[in-house]
Amino acid sequence: MSQLFIDLNADLGETTAGNPVADDAAMLKLVSSANVATGFHAGDPHSIAGTVHAAKEAGVVVGAHVGYNDPAAFGRRFIDYNPAELADEVTYQIGALEALARAHGTRVAYVKPHGAMYNAIVHHEAQAKAVIDGIKAFGDIPVMLLPGGVAVDVAEARGLTVIREAFADRNYNPDGTLVSRTQDNAVLHSADDVVRRVLEVAETGAITAIDGSVLSVDAQSVCTHGDSPGAVEMLRGVVAELDARGIEIRSFI
Amino acid sequence: MSQLFIDLNADLGETTAGNPVADDAAMLKLVSSANVATGFHAGDPHSIAGTVHAAKEAGVVVGAHVGYNDPAAFGRRFIDYNPAELADEVTYQIGALEALARAHGTRVAYVKPHGAMYNAIVHHEAQAKAVIDGIKAFGDIPVMLLPGGVAVDVAEARGLTVIREAFADRNYNPDGTLVSRTQDNAVLHSADDVVRRVLEVAETGAITAIDGSVLSVDAQSVCTHGDSPGAVEMLRGVVAELDARGIEIRSFI
Amino acid sequence: MSQLFIDLNADLGETTAGNPVADDAAMLKLVSSANVATGFHAGDPHSIAGTVHAAKEAGVVVGAHVGYNDPAAFGRRFIDYNPAELADEVTYQIGALEALARAHGTRVAYVKPHGAMYNAIVHHEAQAKAVIDGIKAFGDIPVMLLPGGVAVDVAEARGLTVIREAFADRNYNPDGTLVSRTQDNAVLHSADDVVRRVLEVAETGAITAIDGSVLSVDAQSVCTHGDSPGAVEMLRGVVAELDARGIEIRSFI
Amino acid sequence: MSQLFIDLNADLGETTAGNPVADDAAMLKLVSSANVATGFHAGDPHSIAGTVHAAKEAGVVVGAHVGYNDPAAFGRRFIDYNPAELADEVTYQIGALEALARAHGTRVAYVKPHGAMYNAIVHHEAQAKAVIDGIKAFGDIPVMLLPGGVAVDVAEARGLTVIREAFADRNYNPDGTLVSRTQDNAVLHSADDVVRRVLEVAETGAITAIDGSVLSVDAQSVCTHGDSPGAVEMLRGVVAELDARGIEIRSFI
Repeated sequence: MSQLFIDLNADLGETTAGNPVADDAAMLKLVSSANVATGFHAGDPHSIAGTVHAAKEAGVVVGAHVGYNDPAAFGRRFIDYNPAELADEVTYQIGALEALARAHGTRVAYVKPHGAMYNAIVHHEAQAKAVIDGIKAFGDIPVMLLPGGVAVDVAEARGLTVIREAFADRNYNPDGTLVSRTQDNAVLHSADDVVRRVLEVAETGAITAIDGSVLSVDAQSVCTHGDSPGAVEMLRGVVAELDARGIEIRSFI
Repeated sequence: MSQLFIDLNADLGETTAGNPVADDAAMLKLVSSANVATGFHAGDPHSIAGTVHAAKEAGVVVGAHVGYNDPAAFGRRFIDYNPAELADEVTYQIGALEALARAHGTRVAYVKPHGAMYNAIVHHEAQAKAVIDGIKAFGDIPVMLLPGGVAVDVAEARGLTVIREAFADRNYNPDGTLVSRTQDNAVLHSADDVVRRVLEVAETGAITAIDGSVLSVDAQSVCTHGDSPGAVEMLRGVVAELDARGIEIRSFI
Repeated sequence: MSQLFIDLNADLGETTAGNPVADDAAMLKLVSSANVATGFHAGDPHSIAGTVHAAKEAGVVVGAHVGYNDPAAFGRRFIDYNPAELADEVTYQIGALEALARAHGTRVAYVKPHGAMYNAIVHHEAQAKAVIDGIKAFGDIPVMLLPGGVAVDVAEARGLTVIREAFADRNYNPDGTLVSRTQDNAVLHSADDVVRRVLEVAETGAITAIDGSVLSVDAQSVCTHGDSPGAVEMLRGVVAELDARGIEIRSFI
Repeated sequence: MSQLFIDLNADLGETTAGNPVADDAAMLKLVSSANVATGFHAGDPHSIAGTVHAAKEAGVVVGAHVGYNDPAAFGRRFIDYNPAELADEVTYQIGALEALARAHGTRVAYVKPHGAMYNAIVHHEAQAKAVIDGIKAFGDIPVMLLPGGVAVDVAEARGLTVIREAFADRNYNPDGTLVSRTQDNAVLHSADDVVRRVLEVAETGAITAIDGSVLSVDAQSVCTHGDSPGAVEMLRGVVAELDARGIEIRSFI
């Protein structure tokens, strides 16, 4: 008899110039994987060091949240990179985080692209190859991606383990894309709906789309958010409910 | 019968936004150690990757040229850092370079602080401790420093190997400090004088000051420059002369 | 019969990468002068534009909150600038803000140095001259400064109007310096104490130090903060109390 | 009897961290309009101040060379900006340069978008509108553009004077686009060919394409380059030839 479990990941370490954007301490009590900023879209070496230290203390696995070098826009807009430059930036970021992680007794266990980079490599083949190249240049570590994108194919073709993720609080179209934030039903607002999403992923790896069809995406991690007091509070409720149902929250590692 | 040898080091990888500041390709044929910029005072991941690749090809040892996060001034002005932030920045920089170096078949073999950081830690104890802490957090690798400074004492107290360096083209005061650039005799302009300096260091580790007194500094490396066509040309002459005298140019590693 | 009035100023427009550090909207209902970030220590052109627009709508006067080019540390650490470079940075920042202010129907009415720059020019004569030079190069507009510093003398010698400011929530030593934050009594925590401070400045321009002695500093503006919900709430109480006593809050312009 | 004249423009003020990318002093003796960097794609306030001072001394007109906020890539790659943010960045840059220009007795007389921004607004309507909005927010000053692009239409619709420019050393396709640098015949390598181009523009405003067809583009300025010793030398020859033929080099202002 095996126990059901699920990985919950969240973006952490994005404090810049001393100004936090999320309640990292609260989130580290709830999630099993921390996507830690590497200083390119957000974060700085000292805030990163504090985050990896706290993650280690909390038993949370550290991933490198690599992004475009665009702090002015928090890494959220597409940049038409020279692929070779993008690959080297990815390697650089992972290495920088790895050094800080090792200094605090942990290590970079996976990579998750951030923001516009995450979205671009779903369809932009040259950038997908560059990002995967940059990860491979660091080492053979798992990469967390949106299911169904070109980056998944590239990563698997190059022998990297792919962690497919689902979003805790977003609705999905029947084709596997997220319902656009311009639609009223883009976001799940109730803890019950989020619990249902996480349970479905934990039990089956699938996601039910807005039309009731089931997306067999083989998700192994669920992305959560802590960028508002309400978000943290809701996640606390979700975690309590998972606990009550005997679902363990632990890393895919 | 032992052969005399000396390490020649130079600052490389400082190309930023595609604009080179030195002739890296020429210098890699002349020196044995490359102080490679890490993206904080200069350089970017792609230019750094190109430099470590070329260094590996040329058989030149790679060092991390860590600096203040001050690209606007090329890391050349003092910044009153919070020491803990400075330490984490040093670790971050070494780790970033290490990842790119390993991707190209080499590794970071030593650390050399750059510019204002290099000068500050000669006397600023809190920053000296922070920089050494940041290096130690990465690992026990040698650090290249100005002889006689507080950073030397701190590094040795913490068990790091210190590589003392001499400057190929600068005159020294009897107290071991460099003659200020505001003085007419600050810089050695003739290849003969530079050859004499390098030979003295190779043979004795000492430096003769402007008053003829001898500074027993135990230097193991000589800092050279390639930031002008004239500088590279002079260095070529120096290297040819060393070769003629049977002095090998090789790393202290 | 004249009415008593006082200028309340606050730091605004420091939102960077979409992450606010204060409740600007709330503060613009309370203060008469907005020290608007210029993109060097914080802020970006779009957040700045939003702030000057909102300030214009609220009838709040705009000042240029010029700072060191050090977003990584929010402009809060000393940098040993070349004075000529510092002067040009100050002119650049004021001009950038002026263009955005004029686009929204207002203008830069004064300059207030930020953070480490503000503190440095209390005693660092070369930087004080550089900052005042940079302001003069833009034009003859008032500069807001800590009373008693060397920058006050330099500014007045060069013909600039100096606005001396008091801090709403800090205790003062008998020599006019602020009680260090390392001391228990550095900060005023009660709204009553803050009201008393503002009233004293409005009525006499003086500040009573912790030993009861009176500092005749001729203050014309009081610096307030909105960087926490508690700070904004306390300021609301202070403003209500000033209103009840018939003290008008308006700019020194 | 009127004298023929032509405006020659060049990119200047791109020195960053003390490292020049072109021989600005030599170029200021040859051109009539200086596209001065504003600190976003290159340049810093002090190098900019030096450039506007030298331009004023040389009688060269100053333009604001506005660019994407992307110093890492010298403003040369497309960024998918939020248009409102782009507009505010343009206004900010012009205002910053204007303040430095006025401090040195001159002013910003026109705006020329740089690099990827220049190319994007040939076809990207939202960015074209944003850039023109940003200029209009500063004031009604001429804008220098590639003939035939959407930005020309937007600028003229909003009442801005458009300066159409030709490239001194590039071949043109019959449809008015530049021959791609991937083609062998992209660049004119002989001074004679460049002189012929400038003469044609001065006399007719037209450009002869590679197939011999004539593009009636009404060009009023010719873009030149000084980013290599060879480029400056060739331009000297061109200017001497223009002088010998009685063609005056002067601004379109």
